[in-house]
Amino acid sequence: MAHLKKALYQAHALAQSVVKAGDAVIDATMGNGYDTLFLAQLVGENGRVYAFDIQELALQRTHQRLQEAGCLDRCRLILEGHQHMDKHVEEPVKLVMFNLGYLPKGDHSIGTRYETTRQAVEKALGLIADDGLVILVVYYGGDSGFEERDQILAYLNGLDARKYSVMKTEFINQINCPPLLIAIEKNLPD
Amino acid sequence: MAHLKKALYQAHALAQSVVKAGDAVIDATMGNGYDTLFLAQLVGENGRVYAFDIQELALQRTHQRLQEAGCLDRCRLILEGHQHMDKHVEEPVKLVMFNLGYLPKGDHSIGTRYETTRQAVEKALGLIADDGLVILVVYYGGDSGFEERDQILAYLNGLDARKYSVMKTEFINQINCPPLLIAIEKNLPD
Repeated sequence: MAHLKKALYQAHALAQSVVKAGDAVIDATMGNGYDTLFLAQLVGENGRVYAFDIQELALQRTHQRLQEAGCLDRCRLILEGHQHMDKHVEEPVKLVMFNLGYLPKGDHSIGTRYETTRQAVEKALGLIADDGLVILVVYYGGDSGFEERDQILAYLNGLDARKYSVMKTEFINQINCPPLLIAIEKNLPD
Repeated sequence: MAHLKKALYQAHALAQSVVKAGDAVIDATMGNGYDTLFLAQLVGENGRVYAFDIQELALQRTHQRLQEAGCLDRCRLILEGHQHMDKHVEEPVKLVMFNLGYLPKGDHSIGTRYETTRQAVEKALGLIADDGLVILVVYYGGDSGFEERDQILAYLNGLDARKYSVMKTEFINQINCPPLLIAIEKNLPD
């Protein structure tokens, strides 16, 4: 059994340590709705999940997944690019979660792109509560290429160190480009 | 309260998830003995901790710390460079822990150096059990410089991806060079 966990597992563990029942959270990249459901279960029946995608099919699949799990009531599925999340969310959120690049076995016709991703991360940083977290699981290599990863890392490297801490976890000697994990939190005065 | 934990905290959490009572482990950089005591408490009264340092003063301080905590019985304090750990350890170990560079507020007259560190990591990889872990907390910048960090990362980048997974966690936008965490485990056949 491996002790070192994959990025998505670590992302979920971080989310579980941050999100409490009743919280509001954002799934910035709905896709097939796996994370939307995960988050809906985390926030519980009194919580709220705002989930974004630009593909109608994503909303349909996620709607069905949430309905089957009995979690639809606490979720808002929004057909719009995540760079506009601030238009739809009017409360501080505990967590914003991104999956960037093409997901393995996912639909490769539409993926995230740096310019809109950066705008979305900026909006996310404006929406999180003081004790909130922004988590990015970044798929790269293969069909996704390295460009979005390199650009988003350059942007995050430049985030004001007084305001934010940016943690990056990656497997450095692997040839199959396992996803990397990024987590961002606000630095609060002691 | 920060959700993103510092490298040493994460290193201890990883150690706690891996080491069980009765295990044998290695503290490759004894120093003031804080980690030696931490590991001695983890392995319990039936476990064994092999701890290395080249400074007599490190052994004296660690001896006292362990004695005060009632953990001396399970520890072997060895006055020799960690690159020779295989001469003193004749059983598989669950964990080998390194602190590299100068420790903050530590004695800056002697620090770890790349060439011996690399030899010690190679020995460590040969000594860990199949489900064992090698953990490195790497202090850099300031008095430690960047050379040992860059060289050890280059070496670990080149480790055979079929045999080992190397995970690196770091804070990427900070100006005060917080330590980085590296963990290495064996890849076992499924």
